[in-house]
Amino acid sequence: MTDERPPDSLRALTHALRQFAAERDWDQFHSPKNLVMALSVEVSELMEHFQWLTPEAATALNAEQREAVREELADVLLYLVRLADKLEVELIAAAADKIEKNAAKYPADLARGSMRKYTELKP
Amino acid sequence: MTDERPPDSLRALTHALRQFAAERDWDQFHSPKNLVMALSVEVSELMEHFQWLTPEAATALNAEQREAVREELADVLLYLVRLADKLEVELIAAAADKIEKNAAKYPADLARGSMRKYTELKP
Amino acid sequence: MTDERPPDSLRALTHALRQFAAERDWDQFHSPKNLVMALSVEVSELMEHFQWLTPEAATALNAEQREAVREELADVLLYLVRLADKLEVELIAAAADKIEKNAAKYPADLARGSMRKYTELKP
Amino acid sequence: MTDERPPDSLRALTHALRQFAAERDWDQFHSPKNLVMALSVEVSELMEHFQWLTPEAATALNAEQREAVREELADVLLYLVRLADKLEVELIAAAADKIEKNAAKYPADLARGSMRKYTELKP
Repeated sequence: MTDERPPDSLRALTHALRQFAAERDWDQFHSPKNLVMALSVEVSELMEHFQWLTPEAATALNAEQREAVREELADVLLYLVRLADKLEVELIAAAADKIEKNAAKYPADLARGSMRKYTELKP
Repeated sequence: MTDERPPDSLRALTHALRQFAAERDWDQFHSPKNLVMALSVEVSELMEHFQWLTPEAATALNAEQREAVREELADVLLYLVRLADKLEVELIAAAADKIEKNAAKYPADLARGSMRKYTELKP
Repeated sequence: MTDERPPDSLRALTHALRQFAAERDWDQFHSPKNLVMALSVEVSELMEHFQWLTPEAATALNAEQREAVREELADVLLYLVRLADKLEVELIAAAADKIEKNAAKYPADLARGSMRKYTELKP
Repeated sequence: MTDERPPDSLRALTHALRQFAAERDWDQFHSPKNLVMALSVEVSELMEHFQWLTPEAATALNAEQREAVREELADVLLYLVRLADKLEVELIAAAADKIEKNAAKYPADLARGSMRKYTELKP
């Protein structure tokens, strides 16, 4: 294998979603503004499962809750992948870049045990 | 290769984020409730770039906007992957299941050119 | 006074926001889609203050946090009032109707101490 | 009348919601973190009605859509009022302060016809 990058599972998803939309003539609806709204709506459907739970209950979902939450997580990923595709952003590469950037903004020894914003971290 | 599944690029990301949190002692903050809030906040930071744009302008971002949007998309993915990890959900498998379910809910011939909810699709 | 309704403090706000937008020629941006996006973004700016706090810390904000949170609450109200105005909805009347509807959906004796959805309340 | 302030319609709402929660023993669930999540979920339920609409269709809702949207706007206000009450913020006063602050940040002659952030407005 000459390509050093790991194969990208999101790429398969991207293509599946393109085909799904094409078969239904849905590209006309998939503008960036509409997709970011849909993404936000899906995140809220996920959030709805957690809003009234105690922190403890939120880490001990029953089987029915787990299945519902799994499906909402999937919906969030699907719209995220679709939006990134429309915006021509490679999600995996963008995420790798962001982790690197975050590592520089939040040095482990300064950020340990604190959620202060990076602009407020003091050496 | 005996494993039929394509290698999963999100798995590498999952592990990178686990390490990132461990090095900073951030697991204490990464409860499901907190992470879903953070995910929602990141989606809004993405949305903010689009809110006042015309639909046309939203599909013709300049270089600076594109870079900012790429970074927000990455942030959304990072929190989504982290939350799914905490909830022990395999995102790629969940997404594949959801596409299959959506295909059954939205048959191409019924759903063509319409964003009606599946409960309102008529044969 | 023959009108039984209490004077509406949101009406003054509605008019102030109309004038604010008119003076800046901002009505062109204040479409329902754009305003609902802006509303969502403001809610997330509010949420951001709470996302990493423990439940206890979230009820004991310091003066600086309180001031920031007060301002974000105001922003949410401003966009909500503006959107309702554009959609020609009287917020106070709509809220009164909704409380009445909720009272019927969640009878006090059935709903006591439970956040189950009204469809799952059992007599 | 010696009090110069206009009577506050939100105050009546605040009291109605306090009573509603008390009768159902719901105060235990109404923490700031939970309420801001609920507020966000309601905004998304509102957004859902607009996500796939063209900008034109979003300003020409039919009767059924209008009624649904009215109810979601009410839900947003109810949670906003409840959260502000729990945080001891007077919404109307906070909103008035914010309008004043915005007027200083966005002078009409500089901001006219532009949605640039105030930090990017140029004289």
